[in-house]
Amino acid sequence: MDPRELQKLLEQVRDGGVSPDQAIKRLEHMPFEDLGFAKVDHHRALRHGMPEVVLGLGNATEEVRDIAAELLRRTKNLLVTRATQEMADAVTKLAPEAEFFPRSGALRVWQDREIHGKSKIAIVCAGTSDIPVAQEARVTCEVMGNEVDEIYDVGVAGIHRLLGNLERLSEARVIICCAGMEGALPSAVGGLVSAPVIAVPTSTGYGASFGGVTALLGMLNSCSSNVTVVNIDNGFGAAYVATLINRL
Amino acid sequence: MDPRELQKLLEQVRDGGVSPDQAIKRLEHMPFEDLGFAKVDHHRALRHGMPEVVLGLGNATEEVRDIAAELLRRTKNLLVTRATQEMADAVTKLAPEAEFFPRSGALRVWQDREIHGKSKIAIVCAGTSDIPVAQEARVTCEVMGNEVDEIYDVGVAGIHRLLGNLERLSEARVIICCAGMEGALPSAVGGLVSAPVIAVPTSTGYGASFGGVTALLGMLNSCSSNVTVVNIDNGFGAAYVATLINRL
Amino acid sequence: MDPRELQKLLEQVRDGGVSPDQAIKRLEHMPFEDLGFAKVDHHRALRHGMPEVVLGLGNATEEVRDIAAELLRRTKNLLVTRATQEMADAVTKLAPEAEFFPRSGALRVWQDREIHGKSKIAIVCAGTSDIPVAQEARVTCEVMGNEVDEIYDVGVAGIHRLLGNLERLSEARVIICCAGMEGALPSAVGGLVSAPVIAVPTSTGYGASFGGVTALLGMLNSCSSNVTVVNIDNGFGAAYVATLINRL
Amino acid sequence: MDPRELQKLLEQVRDGGVSPDQAIKRLEHMPFEDLGFAKVDHHRALRHGMPEVVLGLGNATEEVRDIAAELLRRTKNLLVTRATQEMADAVTKLAPEAEFFPRSGALRVWQDREIHGKSKIAIVCAGTSDIPVAQEARVTCEVMGNEVDEIYDVGVAGIHRLLGNLERLSEARVIICCAGMEGALPSAVGGLVSAPVIAVPTSTGYGASFGGVTALLGMLNSCSSNVTVVNIDNGFGAAYVATLINRL
Amino acid sequence: MDPRELQKLLEQVRDGGVSPDQAIKRLEHMPFEDLGFAKVDHHRALRHGMPEVVLGLGNATEEVRDIAAELLRRTKNLLVTRATQEMADAVTKLAPEAEFFPRSGALRVWQDREIHGKSKIAIVCAGTSDIPVAQEARVTCEVMGNEVDEIYDVGVAGIHRLLGNLERLSEARVIICCAGMEGALPSAVGGLVSAPVIAVPTSTGYGASFGGVTALLGMLNSCSSNVTVVNIDNGFGAAYVATLINRL
Amino acid sequence: MDPRELQKLLEQVRDGGVSPDQAIKRLEHMPFEDLGFAKVDHHRALRHGMPEVVLGLGNATEEVRDIAAELLRRTKNLLVTRATQEMADAVTKLAPEAEFFPRSGALRVWQDREIHGKSKIAIVCAGTSDIPVAQEARVTCEVMGNEVDEIYDVGVAGIHRLLGNLERLSEARVIICCAGMEGALPSAVGGLVSAPVIAVPTSTGYGASFGGVTALLGMLNSCSSNVTVVNIDNGFGAAYVATLINRL
Amino acid sequence: MDPRELQKLLEQVRDGGVSPDQAIKRLEHMPFEDLGFAKVDHHRALRHGMPEVVLGLGNATEEVRDIAAELLRRTKNLLVTRATQEMADAVTKLAPEAEFFPRSGALRVWQDREIHGKSKIAIVCAGTSDIPVAQEARVTCEVMGNEVDEIYDVGVAGIHRLLGNLERLSEARVIICCAGMEGALPSAVGGLVSAPVIAVPTSTGYGASFGGVTALLGMLNSCSSNVTVVNIDNGFGAAYVATLINRL
Amino acid sequence: MDPRELQKLLEQVRDGGVSPDQAIKRLEHMPFEDLGFAKVDHHRALRHGMPEVVLGLGNATEEVRDIAAELLRRTKNLLVTRATQEMADAVTKLAPEAEFFPRSGALRVWQDREIHGKSKIAIVCAGTSDIPVAQEARVTCEVMGNEVDEIYDVGVAGIHRLLGNLERLSEARVIICCAGMEGALPSAVGGLVSAPVIAVPTSTGYGASFGGVTALLGMLNSCSSNVTVVNIDNGFGAAYVATLINRL
Repeated sequence: MDPRELQKLLEQVRDGGVSPDQAIKRLEHMPFEDLGFAKVDHHRALRHGMPEVVLGLGNATEEVRDIAAELLRRTKNLLVTRATQEMADAVTKLAPEAEFFPRSGALRVWQDREIHGKSKIAIVCAGTSDIPVAQEARVTCEVMGNEVDEIYDVGVAGIHRLLGNLERLSEARVIICCAGMEGALPSAVGGLVSAPVIAVPTSTGYGASFGGVTALLGMLNSCSSNVTVVNIDNGFGAAYVATLINRL
Repeated sequence: MDPRELQKLLEQVRDGGVSPDQAIKRLEHMPFEDLGFAKVDHHRALRHGMPEVVLGLGNATEEVRDIAAELLRRTKNLLVTRATQEMADAVTKLAPEAEFFPRSGALRVWQDREIHGKSKIAIVCAGTSDIPVAQEARVTCEVMGNEVDEIYDVGVAGIHRLLGNLERLSEARVIICCAGMEGALPSAVGGLVSAPVIAVPTSTGYGASFGGVTALLGMLNSCSSNVTVVNIDNGFGAAYVATLINRL
Repeated sequence: MDPRELQKLLEQVRDGGVSPDQAIKRLEHMPFEDLGFAKVDHHRALRHGMPEVVLGLGNATEEVRDIAAELLRRTKNLLVTRATQEMADAVTKLAPEAEFFPRSGALRVWQDREIHGKSKIAIVCAGTSDIPVAQEARVTCEVMGNEVDEIYDVGVAGIHRLLGNLERLSEARVIICCAGMEGALPSAVGGLVSAPVIAVPTSTGYGASFGGVTALLGMLNSCSSNVTVVNIDNGFGAAYVATLINRL
Repeated sequence: MDPRELQKLLEQVRDGGVSPDQAIKRLEHMPFEDLGFAKVDHHRALRHGMPEVVLGLGNATEEVRDIAAELLRRTKNLLVTRATQEMADAVTKLAPEAEFFPRSGALRVWQDREIHGKSKIAIVCAGTSDIPVAQEARVTCEVMGNEVDEIYDVGVAGIHRLLGNLERLSEARVIICCAGMEGALPSAVGGLVSAPVIAVPTSTGYGASFGGVTALLGMLNSCSSNVTVVNIDNGFGAAYVATLINRL
Repeated sequence: MDPRELQKLLEQVRDGGVSPDQAIKRLEHMPFEDLGFAKVDHHRALRHGMPEVVLGLGNATEEVRDIAAELLRRTKNLLVTRATQEMADAVTKLAPEAEFFPRSGALRVWQDREIHGKSKIAIVCAGTSDIPVAQEARVTCEVMGNEVDEIYDVGVAGIHRLLGNLERLSEARVIICCAGMEGALPSAVGGLVSAPVIAVPTSTGYGASFGGVTALLGMLNSCSSNVTVVNIDNGFGAAYVATLINRL
Repeated sequence: MDPRELQKLLEQVRDGGVSPDQAIKRLEHMPFEDLGFAKVDHHRALRHGMPEVVLGLGNATEEVRDIAAELLRRTKNLLVTRATQEMADAVTKLAPEAEFFPRSGALRVWQDREIHGKSKIAIVCAGTSDIPVAQEARVTCEVMGNEVDEIYDVGVAGIHRLLGNLERLSEARVIICCAGMEGALPSAVGGLVSAPVIAVPTSTGYGASFGGVTALLGMLNSCSSNVTVVNIDNGFGAAYVATLINRL
Repeated sequence: MDPRELQKLLEQVRDGGVSPDQAIKRLEHMPFEDLGFAKVDHHRALRHGMPEVVLGLGNATEEVRDIAAELLRRTKNLLVTRATQEMADAVTKLAPEAEFFPRSGALRVWQDREIHGKSKIAIVCAGTSDIPVAQEARVTCEVMGNEVDEIYDVGVAGIHRLLGNLERLSEARVIICCAGMEGALPSAVGGLVSAPVIAVPTSTGYGASFGGVTALLGMLNSCSSNVTVVNIDNGFGAAYVATLINRL
Repeated sequence: MDPRELQKLLEQVRDGGVSPDQAIKRLEHMPFEDLGFAKVDHHRALRHGMPEVVLGLGNATEEVRDIAAELLRRTKNLLVTRATQEMADAVTKLAPEAEFFPRSGALRVWQDREIHGKSKIAIVCAGTSDIPVAQEARVTCEVMGNEVDEIYDVGVAGIHRLLGNLERLSEARVIICCAGMEGALPSAVGGLVSAPVIAVPTSTGYGASFGGVTALLGMLNSCSSNVTVVNIDNGFGAAYVATLINRL
């Protein structure tokens, strides 16, 4: 229901042309985008003090470019996830300051660099093959206004490297932990800190790693109670939730 | 939002105590059970020309009895699915005309026996071990006002028995087809008739039947295009959709 | 058994050359395409007031072209599902009015545009990546003589957009609902309407979406009782059953 | 390494009996529970401003009772998860104020009822069969010093009930969302609020619900970006993370 | 169609009361149990020079008893598979010569002990835990008129015991090979003989044996080309096919 | 152990140069390809009245060509399964009479066309997409000396076509039945005949067909007792066993 | 072939009663337990400097008792795995010194306590619920003549406890590491030591632990290269291999 | 913590500038790379009397080349696993003596050819398609200082070839056994020898071999107790553990 229609209806009630009872009947038959729902959108708007996000995966370059063009008219920060090089080229024509991160497919316009997070988000990963997922998480965290501390190459098989970073881990308000193979890193990290740990299974490995399923299952069964999990390779989702927590 | 509150608000608009603009603002901050939503309930009400249904599974006998008692005050027909003998006893105390079907756990109060369906629903199953699921479907179809034709023991391995029932199959407006093991019956039935076939995998069998998963997968891959599928052992759901179709 | 042979046999009985007992014996040893079976074909013919359908997937272009050529001699409407561009080109040479829909691979000759359906079929989907499957469903519904209402981009995460289309949903006689990821849309749609909902899981998503398996499982476990399910990406099958229901 | 040994070593260095070089050598050969590690424990202690927690599952009643007895000497609040009635009886003898919640197996001694959380945690669930898991979450949240708002029976199939609770949902700082079957509730809730949503799949349902796996997969593929997931039936873990977030 | 009706119709044709054309029309509208189909039953009858078989699993004792009673009136040999002790007792009252084999649940009335098989069937199994399945196979083979040679305890880990039975293996016309765990025995046996090997995975083992699935998969991937496979624990099915082969 | 060495040893025993005790000791330390084992090879030789078979899959063209060259020196019939076009070209240079069947990758040199089978093998399949697997089975059966009857396009959804071939099915001594999707064809065929049916699941289909797994599971759960199963797409294996049976 | 028969045959050769050629022929037709094979048994005997082992699981008490009685006549040490209390009672009557360990079902007669291992085997586990599996491993290691060092309660979430045992871990020649849930412990242990680590997944946990499958998969994907894996709950197998390694 | 800082601190203690108590406090706040941890690194160093190993999979050619360049400055032996031809070319420019094995992707610089193993490692495989994995194992074993004995083409279906190699098998101190399909070879090998057998499932096969999962499961369920398992295709891991065992 269009607010103007509602306005008109209420004016007719005020002017006596429509009785309150008649107005209720008419309201009952109006489509659902009614005033009450503005509240929902309002909430969404609040949440979207965050940048606009477009999912590149499975869309045509022109679609992504057109959506990006429209969004860039009314937003300073834009994130395209899982973009192709072609999409990156198309968006860069629209916004020359766009940055593209080929390993993760993250594409970012980051003009408003104000920090909204209350503290730091640590992004931890085990091996070099987890870096694309960690990169998606970092690029997302940054464009959403967080300070990020990257702690890479700290796998469970070399526990001393992880312990060597204990101080940095302790300073983070929330930790994103990317790991493939057996997915054990979040358990180890979770046992060392008191912050919430968001575990991201990565699809690295071979054989019985089953494209990240083993890591996913391992993380869901973590013996550390401060661990929650997102989908395989979902660096964006982890960064999104970490941002929400970091703004509290 | 309470309709009376809305009434009052609109009367204030009519009386000039509240301006249209103020009314819009106040509407924006009201909770969501507003008038627009009555429409949803209205729809649900329409659909629920059907009897009330209670799921026994996983509830305490007292809970089921209390819900049944409340429903029986305002409804003539009642269905409890997956009820225990104890639940059946408790409900029978409330409504002596209640019927209990132990193999399926269906429990029914069927006082209003008016037929709402336009034609017959055929319920077909392959072996004796599929009968509990077929029974749940039949009991549900009946209490929802359908004429039912049961065609049992017509498995794919004895195709002549199925063909011997061709005439009865052809007279049904919609067919519910329960089968375990390889779940092939819906494909064979679907190839013989032009009615929609709702396939219900049953959890019978052993070994690689995996509690009905094999039958479920077989049905989803049916080479007959008039087949749709519901969850394993979900005779109730099949009957519900069949009833909707039979009322069209 | 050839009808002419049967004719001849019966004439021999009439003429006394063959006794009834001898005729029964001979009938017993005849091959099975006997008269009784004409009835089956008859039924199939009734159902096939629908257009001829060819599955492109896994066939050679020449095979598809030859079958199409043969069918086009005796039918006005033709549907090739999962066709390649090459198949589309070959068929377009035969029938210049052929339409090809590359995202779904649907290829259609639609000359007889008479409406056979009693009411509208709504096709609902959540995201842009579900559109190929929704497109296959739409193209099929249309060529089978149904009026279609497409309602796109109404995912569960933005429930207000779904509610904003409540009126259109309520007007459909049957609803096809395509969704990937968690496959939750059919449950939400099913809770809002009293029509049967045919759920089509789509193979979109990544990681633990497992090529549509997660959506499929979600739909099979729908908490709305008016939902049945077809195979992953099977827009055609959903449209076929919806057409059957819409003709009742 | 025992702090006293370290103390002694340093005193020997101070007194000149041991040279700095010799001290380094001896430190190198000491076991690892050295001073540096106190820091880790210190962190854990910080985190454990939370009550002590014991997992009842798979342990003998006497073991649980003995651990409880020991803990109750130095703590005011105690939580035993997945306890049996027998364990509950044994602990109640030790602490008569203990509360036992049979549906979830949660057993609690809650003497220090100070609130540590900054705001409310909402616990949302879809059906009555999800209540045991929601109960474990609530009991845990409370004993860890949070205010809790329970919103039950708001499944996706009856979206208006969920919307009717929009205001309460919006007031929560973090939301725990328990759902079985298709696990769609977290997506719908996540689309309505800007708070982090912790999704808990429950093992309710039958057939293709696979003991909660379908719900788990659905949640991991949620189309709402503010959703993270814990193990099936892990109400405790969700409450633990929610508590950490609510204390930030 | 009733043979008598057909007889009558043909007599009417003979007598001139019905023209051949009219007869064809009437035949077209008769139900399907027509003469042509007698042929099918005839085939089944041929095959059932085998004893009658009843599946005990999932049926009530009374049902099994009643079917057995009816069958025993017209057959000398009867087999009930997966029977309970209660079923065995009930059938033994009907036929005191009935034998019951508790480990496999096979229940047999074996009065006609004529040998129909052309040669011997060898039944091979690896460990003592496979014996129940081997027993079902043996009891079935015997009651179906085959000579059986049991070769037990010849697992792959002790290859010399298998080789020590090479002569007996070589004398069998067809081999039934039951194995759990890794299911490797059929490959080894198949490599030693030129007879067809029917592999029966057994549900023995624990952990990653997954109730026989591992053995089943191993057998399907056998590197010996003379191996085919039946369902987990399906000793009856293996014996049935072995009997068919042994009668050729 | 070389027979000549054994001969020599026994001659030394005869001549008194070696005592029986010494001979036993020396026999104990000889390698295992001893005389006793000739028996095994003898058996294999018997079985290999069949042509030599080479698996092309996963081997280099040169390897396949070299093995083929060697085999062709001492055999008249040769079969290469899963060969590439390149392999076919290389072998055709060696043996111009070689036939290549691109859809199945079967490559055959068939010079000795003597029939060894006692009767016919029927090869049945449901749809055109199953033909490659059926082709591999046919090519194998022929080159192994069997008469073959191909019955194609007789799926379960069009049961009358299957019944129309009842006579041909009844004449086969063993039936190979290839089917994808729900894999129901072997059950229907098995119910019509008394011959052993070897079911071959094919990897056709999409979505929940899981590359043939659904068909495989369906076949393992066949309600017809005369069905055994081989690996997905294993037309060769089915033909091999069918040949063994047809030679009995 | 009986050695005495061979002896006799060779004596006949020596005495001229049998020619070498005749002897070769007769050897060819002898059963396979020939001299050559004694070598195999000899090897097995060497390996079985270990105690006799009986698997209780799935066997009747009397069978286990009878086998035990027979073995105890010729062996000092005996191990029954997965025994029931009833089996334990029966064996204790035979050998009063028998020890029974109810949590693991291990039953042991350990009279010859000589140490055969070259060094210590460490058995590490994470939580109290892993103890039954660790117990089976310990009881087995001891009865096979190894010194054992048990290090319990050292899970990944409390890494400092693991590090505190670094010295003891370093002293082991081979480590058995039992863990459930995410199965991460072997990776952490493997990163700290240079000994081979044998990982045993345990079936503890709930929900997505899938009875030990998650732990199993995690261990197979371990990022530490010195880890190999045995079946879920297979403490015996791990101990067996550890013993072999410890004897090298 | 830097050793020099510790040195300085201890000197201050010695000099009286810092009291022991103050020193303890400061030690508590130092980062974790403290002296105690040198012990860990020390252990790792011991283990790495082995060559440096780089995983090529998933890394860029330049990264691999740069790491190789750095390592080659301080090591004589280098192994890159799963390298591409491009990586091989890049490393060969740095070290002309590098060897590349294309079938396995193993790339090796092997200058120090000293033997560290106590005895031989046998590498056994069943078919030609398992050779790439066996090759990775061999190349690794050699560069880690072991003598290797390759025994190929000894599958379970031709047991006599395996037995013919019994002597060579018996001479190995540890056996690596690579097999695809049903993965039965390690069971057969394990039954013949007393050495530990490390089983490597290979991803060869088709259909229900599921990329090596069937072989993996078979090996985990081996009926030979001396078998442990590594990940699918993990020839490197098997060789690593075999090397550790061979050095004991």
